[in-house]
Amino acid sequence: MVDIKAFSGYEIVGGGVCAAKGFKANGVCCGLAHKPLNKTEENSAIANNALPENTKKKNDLAAIYCEKECAAAAVYTTNKVKGAPINVTKRNIENGYAKAVIVNSVNANCCNADGEEKAERMCEILASELNIDKRDVIVASTGVIGQVLPIEPIENAAKELCEGLTEDGNERACEAIMTTDTVKKQIAVRFKLGDRQVTLGGMLKGSGMIHPNMATTLTFITTDCDIAPEYLQRALSENVKITLNMASVDGDTSTNDMVCVLASGLAQNKKINSENEDYETFKNALYIVMLNLARMMARDGEGATKLIECICTGANDDETARKVAKSVVCSSLFKSAIFGEDANCGRIFCAVGYSGGDFEVSDLNVAMASKAGSIDVCKDGSVLEFDEEKAAKILAEEEINIHVSVGSGLFSATAWGCDLTYDYVRINGDYRS
Amino acid sequence: MVDIKAFSGYEIVGGGVCAAKGFKANGVCCGLAHKPLNKTEENSAIANNALPENTKKKNDLAAIYCEKECAAAAVYTTNKVKGAPINVTKRNIENGYAKAVIVNSVNANCCNADGEEKAERMCEILASELNIDKRDVIVASTGVIGQVLPIEPIENAAKELCEGLTEDGNERACEAIMTTDTVKKQIAVRFKLGDRQVTLGGMLKGSGMIHPNMATTLTFITTDCDIAPEYLQRALSENVKITLNMASVDGDTSTNDMVCVLASGLAQNKKINSENEDYETFKNALYIVMLNLARMMARDGEGATKLIECICTGANDDETARKVAKSVVCSSLFKSAIFGEDANCGRIFCAVGYSGGDFEVSDLNVAMASKAGSIDVCKDGSVLEFDEEKAAKILAEEEINIHVSVGSGLFSATAWGCDLTYDYVRINGDYRS
Repeated sequence: MVDIKAFSGYEIVGGGVCAAKGFKANGVCCGLAHKPLNKTEENSAIANNALPENTKKKNDLAAIYCEKECAAAAVYTTNKVKGAPINVTKRNIENGYAKAVIVNSVNANCCNADGEEKAERMCEILASELNIDKRDVIVASTGVIGQVLPIEPIENAAKELCEGLTEDGNERACEAIMTTDTVKKQIAVRFKLGDRQVTLGGMLKGSGMIHPNMATTLTFITTDCDIAPEYLQRALSENVKITLNMASVDGDTSTNDMVCVLASGLAQNKKINSENEDYETFKNALYIVMLNLARMMARDGEGATKLIECICTGANDDETARKVAKSVVCSSLFKSAIFGEDANCGRIFCAVGYSGGDFEVSDLNVAMASKAGSIDVCKDGSVLEFDEEKAAKILAEEEINIHVSVGSGLFSATAWGCDLTYDYVRINGDYRS
Repeated sequence: MVDIKAFSGYEIVGGGVCAAKGFKANGVCCGLAHKPLNKTEENSAIANNALPENTKKKNDLAAIYCEKECAAAAVYTTNKVKGAPINVTKRNIENGYAKAVIVNSVNANCCNADGEEKAERMCEILASELNIDKRDVIVASTGVIGQVLPIEPIENAAKELCEGLTEDGNERACEAIMTTDTVKKQIAVRFKLGDRQVTLGGMLKGSGMIHPNMATTLTFITTDCDIAPEYLQRALSENVKITLNMASVDGDTSTNDMVCVLASGLAQNKKINSENEDYETFKNALYIVMLNLARMMARDGEGATKLIECICTGANDDETARKVAKSVVCSSLFKSAIFGEDANCGRIFCAVGYSGGDFEVSDLNVAMASKAGSIDVCKDGSVLEFDEEKAAKILAEEEINIHVSVGSGLFSATAWGCDLTYDYVRINGDYRS
């Protein structure tokens, strides 16, 4: 986790997407993953200890709701092939406002001829149950691409989903958006704007098909801050660039990625309507939440056993710093070496070399670090002889930091990734079943 | 293997880099991989059936030699971090001519403070033994980056290396350039220019740190064709674009990649000095050899069990065709699915979508094929319901063809890759030991 002490004035709190005033959430199992067994079949299977893997119940449908109309902002995948919900959400929040979110896992509703119709229908189902306008609904889907989305399970579960919306429903919602994720990923912060207490929290699903190029995952953020849609969008877009867009699991930019924020205004702070000091304070809170979610996502990358953080410093321009940091965390060879806890620093050099950044090779310095210590492995463009035993201890930790200095410039950037493991291959060799 | 019938007038022959007139080759084990055991130690180890893995003898040093001065051309890695031999070779063939090649595996001689000095020394050692100018030597290294290259084993083996140069030494040389390769990769073709018989052959080492961005591997090609250096370079550069640069194993562009050609002129054809018909015939021969080597490389990618070939057709421009084909064979998610023989065509869509190519999603059609048949999986931008059993049979084969049609344009391109497997992770988790 990020050291929060660096951000004085911000307190980490529980509650995820329900932490901010006015937001309720829920998650249910509507049965998208499987044809649910009937009670007799289920009891028989449990008695025989033979419940098939795909009939185990996991929440697969979530909703977030705020009675008050919220300012809304979102950033979407740059993939040309887009999930149908992306287009529907774009239209729905064009006016800058929304009240609710509906999201399913298991099925991405992407590359289906009837995709938009189904995504629209999801909005209608939720709106009708909540008695709101269907244009006030944000819709999202994640899961297998190219399978027709069955709408009946969602229709059938809508009542249960909405009746169960509570101010502590974030855990159930967070479970519902998980696919190959192994842990729930949520965080919230509390801070002051003037004399008002403001809260901002979010949840995110990883963990495969994740690569820096806008958005990168499904991320839902809620806040009770009073902020105009224009500035909400600005704060979101700026933060995406340095958080989610700097995290990579496998280099594949998903079709369905989206990060959205709803701001209820219920904190009753002086409405943010310009890039003033309050805006900066709010933007920092959003940064803390998105930074932590990005790191959690990388750490929970499919099959991952380690988080890799690469910091590039000394660059002469922002682009070089970003390219270098991302290139290291994206290298399959380096990711495999980290899995093997092999201090193969030549692969860092290789990845830095093909990053496309602007620097002199003779200025390159590289260090590896973790809780267990730090070691210089390359200096002035050449690999140093280093203590392999010490390096092995450093790489045995779960969070590995790579520091690449490319010169004496003033720009720096940080990127997050994870190791490449047998489990990544296992998970993705047979994802659809 | 490519169906050679499509290229009438070209005959596949044996002999690799020794197939063309005037070329001798050799490969020896100079002991870069390990401190060789003395005879007593070795006998004892063999008697006890306890020869350690890293003392098994594998050739690690090769040479190619032609008494006659050859026209020479090369294409190098685009990685900013370059192996020291790259710089030395560039200088040595600046004049367009060379007579010999020296190449070692095990150690890449890259990111070492004394790298160029050592690469120069390798040229000197060979030149002195062959009694030629050291500026007539092409030098290359492949293996671990960032470890000082011990020069003594090369010095000590130079005599044996040169005395053993023979016209059938291509097998020994081909073994010497292998790193994690599991098979030797070599091929030669014979064809006519006027009434003269011309031969062109080559060898290549794969199989990791391979990604399309110039050259992509160590590849050595020899021919007895009489061709001016300028046209040799032109034919090489044009073919790299559509062969080696369209093959990817893991997305990492190596520091040491190089492909070079030596042309002895001993076939005594009318010297190629313009882009005439003979030039086209020669360029096609070079294409056949490089195409086959590129396919062999992808098929022998680290840990690979399958060759993936993606053909993109119907593009409105060359760049789109290339981008789409490469994006599919480079997708970690799709590569994993192919390993699992899972017909997850959504991942093809996803990779096509983020390729950066210029097309309409509604024009996308995708088919999967192999020796076992062919099946349409996507039409007009939507995934079709297809026969999973038939798809499974198709994907059970060792060579999988993906056909992506992006419209009705006239441009097409082909790319080659391999599946992502447990063994890729195993090999690269512990490459240095």
